[in-house]
This record gives sequence, C-alpha cells and structure tokens, in this order.
Amino acid sequence: MKKQDPSKKLEELGKKLVQDIDKGKNPTIEFSLRSLSNVIFDEKSKTLTLGDKTQQRSFFNVSHAKKFLQTLEIAKVSKILLDVSKHASLRDVFYMAKRTIPNSNINIVDDQSESDKALEDLELITDCSREQLNINANKMGSVAGNVVIEDAGDLINWSKLGSGGWSIPSNVENIEFKSVKAKYVIYMEKQAVWERLHEDKFWEKQNCIIVTSQGQTTRGIRRLLQRLTEEHSLPIYVLADFDPWGFYIYSVLKYGSINLAHMSGTMTLQNARFLGITADDVANYDLKKHFIKFKDVDMTRLKQIAEYDWFKKNKAWQRQFKMMKDFGAKLEIQSLSSKGITFISEKYLPEKIKRGEFLE
Amino acid sequence: MKKQDPSKKLEELGKKLVQDIDKGKNPTIEFSLRSLSNVIFDEKSKTLTLGDKTQQRSFFNVSHAKKFLQTLEIAKVSKILLDVSKHASLRDVFYMAKRTIPNSNINIVDDQSESDKALEDLELITDCSREQLNINANKMGSVAGNVVIEDAGDLINWSKLGSGGWSIPSNVENIEFKSVKAKYVIYMEKQAVWERLHEDKFWEKQNCIIVTSQGQTTRGIRRLLQRLTEEHSLPIYVLADFDPWGFYIYSVLKYGSINLAHMSGTMTLQNARFLGITADDVANYDLKKHFIKFKDVDMTRLKQIAEYDWFKKNKAWQRQFKMMKDFGAKLEIQSLSSKGITFISEKYLPEKIKRGEFLE
Repeated sequence: MKKQDPSKKLEELGKKLVQDIDKGKNPTIEFSLRSLSNVIFDEKSKTLTLGDKTQQRSFFNVSHAKKFLQTLEIAKVSKILLDVSKHASLRDVFYMAKRTIPNSNINIVDDQSESDKALEDLELITDCSREQLNINANKMGSVAGNVVIEDAGDLINWSKLGSGGWSIPSNVENIEFKSVKAKYVIYMEKQAVWERLHEDKFWEKQNCIIVTSQGQTTRGIRRLLQRLTEEHSLPIYVLADFDPWGFYIYSVLKYGSINLAHMSGTMTLQNARFLGITADDVANYDLKKHFIKFKDVDMTRLKQIAEYDWFKKNKAWQRQFKMMKDFGAKLEIQSLSSKGITFISEKYLPEKIKRGEFLE
Repeated sequence: MKKQDPSKKLEELGKKLVQDIDKGKNPTIEFSLRSLSNVIFDEKSKTLTLGDKTQQRSFFNVSHAKKFLQTLEIAKVSKILLDVSKHASLRDVFYMAKRTIPNSNINIVDDQSESDKALEDLELITDCSREQLNINANKMGSVAGNVVIEDAGDLINWSKLGSGGWSIPSNVENIEFKSVKAKYVIYMEKQAVWERLHEDKFWEKQNCIIVTSQGQTTRGIRRLLQRLTEEHSLPIYVLADFDPWGFYIYSVLKYGSINLAHMSGTMTLQNARFLGITADDVANYDLKKHFIKFKDVDMTRLKQIAEYDWFKKNKAWQRQFKMMKDFGAKLEIQSLSSKGITFISEKYLPEKIKRGEFLE
C-alpha cells in the first residue's frame, strides 16, 4: 500500500467520473462492500480482510446521492491537503466538509460519523490509507530505544529524550529510520509501565525498543510497529494485562479488527507475540493474591474472544481462556510491583524473554 | 514547595511518631482537614486552598487505626522510592502497599482509592507533592518550541523533535531549563489542534511554546506550565472549546480544584488567560453554523460554573456565560477549520493575540 500515489489515485477517481458524465452515463463509484457479511478471516494471510462482494454508489440514485456527494467532498478535502502538504484530523475534515449545498439548506455532512464513513470508503476506493490521504488519527504514545529517525527535517535520537521519550505523532508515514539498533520491540498498553521500563533503562540493557499508547493502540502506533517489524525484521512482544481487554488489544494488533478489515495489509502485525501477563505467571510469580474478581461483563467478553476464528483452534490460547475462566479473575501488569519496584524490568521480562515464553 | 527535602520530611514524620511511643503517648499525626468544609477560595492568592481546620489520626483509635497504618505504609513506599531514586505510578504504589498484615487476613489496602487517599494525606503531612515523593501521575501530552532542557542526563531541544514533539513525562520536577526562547505559551486541550499548529510551525513563526494534553490537564503538564511561567515569566494562553468543559479546564488551571486545594501553590497558574474560543468569536469569525446544540447536562454544567466564587463577580466571564446560555449551544476549536486548514494558525490566533483579546 505504501507505493500508491494518493494524489494520482484521487485524480483517477475524478477522471473516471468525468468520463461517465461525458458518455452520458450515471456517475458511479464501485468498491468493496464494507459490511460484516463481507468481512472474512483469511486463513492464508491470517488477518481479517474483505471478501469479494462489491457495492456501487451512483449520483442519480435517490438513496445514493448524498453519500456520493460526501465521498467526493472528502476526496476534495484530501486533495487540497495533499496539494498544500498539510495534514488534518478527522474532526477538521468534518468541519471542512460541513458546508451548505448552494441554493438549499442541506449540509453535505451534519455529523462526523458521516465524514468518517465517507473517508473509510475513500480508503477503499483509492487503496490509500487515511494517513496517506493526509488525514490523521489521534496520537497518544511514547517510544524510546537506540533508534535515530528523520522526521519533518529533524534528526531525532530516541535514546536521548530524557524521561519523556518521543511523542509518537498520529501519522508516521513520512518518518525515515536512519539507524535501528535493537533485537526486539516491546509494546505495552500502559504509560505507567513504559515509564517504569524507561526509568530502569530497560531498552538500553536489553537492547530493545519500548513503545506505549494508553489503552487501545492508535493507528499511528500500529503503523510505527508495523514499519519496525517490516523494515527492520524486529519481533514485537505485547505486554498487556491478563484480562479479556488485554487479549483483545493483542488480537487487534495481530489479526486486525472488523472496522479495519479493509486496511489489514498496513495495520496488522503478523509476528506479534503475547509476552504476558499469562495464566501461568500467576503460579510462577505467585500473583494470585492480586486477582481482581470477574464481573459479568468480563466473562461475556472472554467468551466472545474465545470464539474468534483465530483463537478457536489455538490450543495454547484456549488453555489460557480456560484458566482465566476457572480463576474467575483477571490480573494487572502492575501487580508485579508488589514484588519490588524493578521486579518487572530486572526479573520478569528478562526471564520470560530468555525462556521464550510467548503465546502465539 | 520546591525547596522541601522529601526524604527529610518523611524521616521527621517517623521520628515524631517514635517520640510519641517513647513518651508512652498515643502515636498521632495532625494535618489540615481535607474536606469540602475546609476548602476556601482565598481572595488574596486567588486560588482554592485549605482553611485552618485540622484533623488528627491516631494509632490507638479503632476508627483511625487502619488509615494510620495506610498513611505510614505509603510513607514507607515513598521513602524506599526516594532511597533508590526510582519513581512509581499510583497503581504501582497500590500494589506495593497491598500486603497482608502478619498474623491476620487483613490487607493494608484493598483498593487503590485507599492508597491514593493516604498519599494525598501524606502530601499534606510532609508539605511535599506526590511528584516530589517520587510517585507519578499519568502522562499524556506533547510540547514544542525554542527550548532546550536537560532531563535524565539528556539535552533535549524541543524545536528539533519532528512531528511528534517531546512527550511530557508524568513528573517534571527534575528537568532543567537550559535555554527558553519564547514570548508566551499556548496550552490547548486537543492533540489534533497541537498537531495543526506544529505542522504550521506556529511556535517558530510566533516565537512561542505550544503544549497539549488530551482532555483534562495532567499534573505533569500543569507543573510544566507553572515552571515555565514562574521561572521564565511567560504568560500562558489557554485555547479550549467554547463549552462548559473548556471553561472548566481553564478554571482548574488558573484557580485550582477542590481535589487539589492542598496543592494550590504548585498547581495553579495565576496568570493564565483564556484566548478562545469565546462567544465574541462566533460573530467575529462567522461560526454560528457550527454550533452544537446544548443538552440538559451542558446547561446544568454552565450554571454550576457561572456560580463559582471566582467567576461570580467577573463581568467579562458572566457576559460569556450569558451569551452561551442565550445561544443554547457550544462550539469547538476545530470549527475554525471550516475557514481553511491554516486559518487558526495564520489568522485567528495571531489576530487575537495581537489585539490582546483575552478573557481573565
């Protein structure tokens, strides 16, 4: 997907529609159907992806006309952004598209969900990601390690950024890796755990890169992880809570999600492995007393995840799910702090990585 | 508060209790009462602060004993952290304190709210902030500008960090400003707006520093802003949505909050000014069509804020509240994008700052 020229793709779209008009045909866009019925788990690529069904959107069709206009309006906004080399957020794009159709009192979009949806369609139509179309997602995350990058004209050394680290932007398509000295990447869902490892200089001692978001992984971070693994062959280890939500973070990173099925090529991490916290850690590190009892919603979520296509026939994971169910409890990464402040960086992680105790 | 030696303060606390025991007295800690009845708005310092009421906590008192133990346990955890020069998050501290009292089945703390509360008490007892006690809050935010700092042995130039910027750590007590070239600081609640200004090199063109969190300001960011204004006399301009929540962000930054009344000295920004979005911008920049209609909860929140001591007699603010009420609507910063991608950085902000259109 990286090699597409988004500007050219948008121009092609425009030309195609002008041709339709010149031929006296109904201007029509055709693209993959993005609905649950067309989301499949591709056993070969091991990702959630779109099937063969397509949908059409025509101008002279009462039920299509508004969506058709919205799609073209977003294409226009994106083209302007690309032309002037600026980026905008989803919210900005919504406001840019929210204008009144002349001689009417109808707005092109009234709600951000409309412009978001049109943009997702545009990703499919152009085969370019939102980021390539210069439209940014949220940012929120930090990284540290022995890595030098070039970004927006600056040379940035991820090992020289104090206690804060580099703030990962929402769009990492244009950063360039100048030097990457690391054996692996640890991605963790919690900022506080990242600060722990960073203060302990874990990345320096273990020769790795540490990355965090806060909660669900943002698109910027996913792309950063994907670029590190694809361009520098680094394995990705996921450090998350022992709870259905932690499993879900791993699942989305590795296999994709229904919302992003059309982006599985640039957004999934085939070689991500789950490092912990696992059910086995409970006994191995004597963590039972820090169990947090399941609520009904946790049990429901666990059952859903256990039924995912990619986990269904996976014995190692089913064993984890079963143990969690039997515990009727979850466990946080930070419960390791009960063993001492630096237990996680000096004992738990080095031990587990050395022994190769990963779930896949 | 900066000059306190937290280790010494903790030692003093321990010695005082040992003296009580040696004298055959009931070991007792006395400190300011932290309850709504003792939170006052100090007209002189213009902050929410604690009054004169105090509370006692004694070991031989059935209703005090557990809290007494919790407070001492957190003091112990903090002392260990200070001794080994490590930092921990609130969640870590909870797990460190969550141990079973020997010969019983009672845990010192069962829930993080208990260790958090004990820590807040410890802030009062020692007159040291949580950060000075090496216990970190959440981090989440970015900064850029013509500033060089030293942090954890690294020299970091905020003007050379690409599109990401420096990720503000949860604890900024130990950073050192080496060079600060700026006329003012703009703090904005939205990452996406920060990315807009950063891409447009706003800080370079306007000679300022741009800071963001996402939503409510974290403690790390507040302290960073406070240090910039105190140590470098920089005015702070707040850029927030035109809604009661945006006003609240400003209010907490400038006057403090009930939860942080005991920290008003290090956490409030006396000279913060509200830059926008204001009710006047609606007409001046023709933004009416981007109004978002009030829900009941918005109106309730607006009424509460209008009743705050520090806003009650402030005519400029009451005028804003009145206009918002009459509009029955709120407005987002990003609605400025409807005027063009760089409208905010090339027109709106320079114009307003030049004209000195601030609310105070």
